[in-house]
Amino acid sequence: MSDISPSRSGGRAARRAARNAPLAQHLRPIRPGLEGGTYKPLSEADMQAIHRAALEALEEIGLADAPPSGVAYLTGAGAILGDDGRIRFPRALVEDTLAMANRQITLCARDPAHDLELGGNRVHFGTAGAAVHMVDAQGRNYRECGVQDLHDAARICDTLDNIHFVQRPMVCRDIPDNQEMDLNTIFACCSGTAKHIGTSFTEPSFVPKALEMLHMIAGGEDKWRERPFMSNSNCFVVPPMKFATESCEVMEAVIEGGMPVLLLSAGMAGATAPSTVAGAIVQAVAECLAGLVYVNAVKPGHPAIFGTWPFGLDLRSGAMTGGSGEQALLTAGCAQMHKFYGVPGGAAAGIADSKLPDMQAGWEQMCSNVMAGLSGCNMIYEAAGMHASLLGFCHESLILGDDLIGQALRCVRGIEVNDETLALDQMREVCLGGPGHYLGTEQTLSRMEQDHVYPALGDRSSPKEWDELGKPDLIEKATARKDQILGQRSAASFDPMLEKALRKAFPIHLPVQ
Amino acid sequence: MSDISPSRSGGRAARRAARNAPLAQHLRPIRPGLEGGTYKPLSEADMQAIHRAALEALEEIGLADAPPSGVAYLTGAGAILGDDGRIRFPRALVEDTLAMANRQITLCARDPAHDLELGGNRVHFGTAGAAVHMVDAQGRNYRECGVQDLHDAARICDTLDNIHFVQRPMVCRDIPDNQEMDLNTIFACCSGTAKHIGTSFTEPSFVPKALEMLHMIAGGEDKWRERPFMSNSNCFVVPPMKFATESCEVMEAVIEGGMPVLLLSAGMAGATAPSTVAGAIVQAVAECLAGLVYVNAVKPGHPAIFGTWPFGLDLRSGAMTGGSGEQALLTAGCAQMHKFYGVPGGAAAGIADSKLPDMQAGWEQMCSNVMAGLSGCNMIYEAAGMHASLLGFCHESLILGDDLIGQALRCVRGIEVNDETLALDQMREVCLGGPGHYLGTEQTLSRMEQDHVYPALGDRSSPKEWDELGKPDLIEKATARKDQILGQRSAASFDPMLEKALRKAFPIHLPVQ
Repeated sequence: MSDISPSRSGGRAARRAARNAPLAQHLRPIRPGLEGGTYKPLSEADMQAIHRAALEALEEIGLADAPPSGVAYLTGAGAILGDDGRIRFPRALVEDTLAMANRQITLCARDPAHDLELGGNRVHFGTAGAAVHMVDAQGRNYRECGVQDLHDAARICDTLDNIHFVQRPMVCRDIPDNQEMDLNTIFACCSGTAKHIGTSFTEPSFVPKALEMLHMIAGGEDKWRERPFMSNSNCFVVPPMKFATESCEVMEAVIEGGMPVLLLSAGMAGATAPSTVAGAIVQAVAECLAGLVYVNAVKPGHPAIFGTWPFGLDLRSGAMTGGSGEQALLTAGCAQMHKFYGVPGGAAAGIADSKLPDMQAGWEQMCSNVMAGLSGCNMIYEAAGMHASLLGFCHESLILGDDLIGQALRCVRGIEVNDETLALDQMREVCLGGPGHYLGTEQTLSRMEQDHVYPALGDRSSPKEWDELGKPDLIEKATARKDQILGQRSAASFDPMLEKALRKAFPIHLPVQ
Repeated sequence: MSDISPSRSGGRAARRAARNAPLAQHLRPIRPGLEGGTYKPLSEADMQAIHRAALEALEEIGLADAPPSGVAYLTGAGAILGDDGRIRFPRALVEDTLAMANRQITLCARDPAHDLELGGNRVHFGTAGAAVHMVDAQGRNYRECGVQDLHDAARICDTLDNIHFVQRPMVCRDIPDNQEMDLNTIFACCSGTAKHIGTSFTEPSFVPKALEMLHMIAGGEDKWRERPFMSNSNCFVVPPMKFATESCEVMEAVIEGGMPVLLLSAGMAGATAPSTVAGAIVQAVAECLAGLVYVNAVKPGHPAIFGTWPFGLDLRSGAMTGGSGEQALLTAGCAQMHKFYGVPGGAAAGIADSKLPDMQAGWEQMCSNVMAGLSGCNMIYEAAGMHASLLGFCHESLILGDDLIGQALRCVRGIEVNDETLALDQMREVCLGGPGHYLGTEQTLSRMEQDHVYPALGDRSSPKEWDELGKPDLIEKATARKDQILGQRSAASFDPMLEKALRKAFPIHLPVQ
């Protein structure tokens, strides 16, 4: 590299220019909806065995505790109510449901640029959960979380490229009234991000008021129904194999209101689900198939996400654990079953058991996130910010999670093999009388932005540079970024007139920002 | 759980007993040699295309700079020396080589319990590298590393279940004479661990003296040749497509000495290899095929590991980077090519760009480690302890890496699907008139040790417990574990008579421990 000629500097200038030009979305190295599916933990025979076991479970065990309305919907569709109060599902009913279920769902966002097309192996990462603590990463402290924390999380997510949707990751512990909490959750999320949001209603009676708010935000009920930008996470079962009566009623109400639903089955392997990975998947699949029958009995083709979310358990303590290899397998195996049925699906990944954004959190979050992505999971929930096995949410970790998921998405994008990428011509040119290296080749320059994901906060400096930079601390950098994001006005803020109207119509707790 | 009956406590006692009994090796949830292969980043057509491109590169471009002895071996085997000094490889020669190459290699260890059987999708994790710095995790500092650091690393590795081999991860910067460094590297590693070790000789003339030492450690040349417990890492190419003249001569010498060789091609994608993942794999494959021809020309069937180790480059700075998604893809794609050829192979994973064992290091190390494992890579080198893009080695990180790799190995083990794990009977029992949960079932209890990997240092406490425990810091725990390990006499220490004899025969720098 000692023979720098004018043409070489020309190359440098071109490289600098290339570096600064913004890339068109389709040329970016990563984006929402990249196709996974190269990782297949289950063989075809394994999937068939899981499917058969799930069908048997539905036919022979069935589910207890459906609400009266649900019993009517399900028996009307062909399910059988037993003397023991359990509803059993003939195989043909499940098959008919799968035939009529919605296989291509668009999850709309307030900003259509953030719409998500679910289906196939298309991968999206986002937040979710019901954390009750806010993690103070600098102070190494846990405290109760509130509506301002939730709003801040939404605002941060709005700025992070690799967080594709914002299901509320924590509950507003500072709002004791549950209906007010539900309404404020919507307000805090929607006023923070224009991406698709998700929530979970406490009671069916809270849904009408919430829909009023959503209609106002959308600019009218017709506009809402045209592009519903919020989905509802329905914990419609209490595993093993019981409907969650009240949540089923919520589900009926939100379907009526035009809201996509996430059919969430959150068994704990070893407690509320079998301890084996395969067994926990069987039960989650059976429960979600029952849910799918339910949804399609209420409204054929209504958008529903097949939410097999089995969680791991530390059998020594009986406490939940989400950072294990078992968890990553549970999630990836479930994602493969979504493809088996050809329905849009989601599962949980990225959960850290660690209390803080430390090395353990990094390996835990990456393990399940990258495996969920490679398995082609459509909706990867709880992917960033979650600590203490879902009890704590951390803004700094959320920001670092964007970097982490960026690398996971690069893996999802995979290896492109074609004449250009095989690079045989380039190899010939470089080796036979060429410069003997690829640093300056057109091909290297032209691909340096579209092939490579560069970390935003991750550090790649040499030890010497790092020392000269004052040994930057990762958490401090994330805190600085958080302060910067929250110090600016959010691009997703409501129009002031709308905000005023909402504050007048509803008991909004979030202070005017 | 309020109705604790005598039989329930009996169950508890049984559980406690089960927990304390050591599991037979074959029942342990994870072990060396688990079968990967469920992750396939390349399609069959992709692999064929890479193979064809590699053959073309070998036929048309060939490799320059073979030593005279290598020219003789290679042309003797059927390669063609061109007027330009490059050696080109006819397709038939490569195919003949693949037919005669050793496909099932045993890497012996001083303790036969640690022998590694390479082949198929069997996965092993270990250290490697040539770090020049020791990372002081507590002091956030980098300093030059020396022979004591290397010995300590070997001793730590000897105690870690998920570190299956110990290729020297750092160079002894405190030994200026290269021959003395090579001899002391062997001594420091071998006296620290009874696992398979690896090194890399600086010059061919150093090999005879080193073999003398190895013969002494083995108890005679015949014993060494029967069970060679050390392999040599040969950086036999200077990518792109040039033999490393001196390293080739080292390779000839170690083959003669009965030592397994790692054919290491370490191109940097974008500098010494094409910038595309596919192109870097093509070149690494071509170079390693050339190496395989070389080895089999010297000694047909000699144990050789197909060491496609392409590294990533940060094209913005031109510096190496090992913590990226691109790196994980490079490694996993290479591992798949090893299966394509059916030869034992190895590649690099687990490299952190981060300077410290922080959250970034955690996600970087997990990403490539778990993907390499899932792809069925036989030898995953540099899997633990490596920071600053290979420039720094950290003992605390090595210890934490054991936890990290444990979870990765659990993922490699995968999902077992059979009647027992599908758990339909259990589901029936629990749901239909049973307890409604799986906590106390025989199946849950019986599998809690053999299905689950529990972290050694990773924290799974609740926020409340964590607070009561004084908010333990991950790095402090790792430092305490390091001090504990190094405070005890190593189980792998040499017999005192042998140690005395070695110290008499060779200029040993390591102080008597």
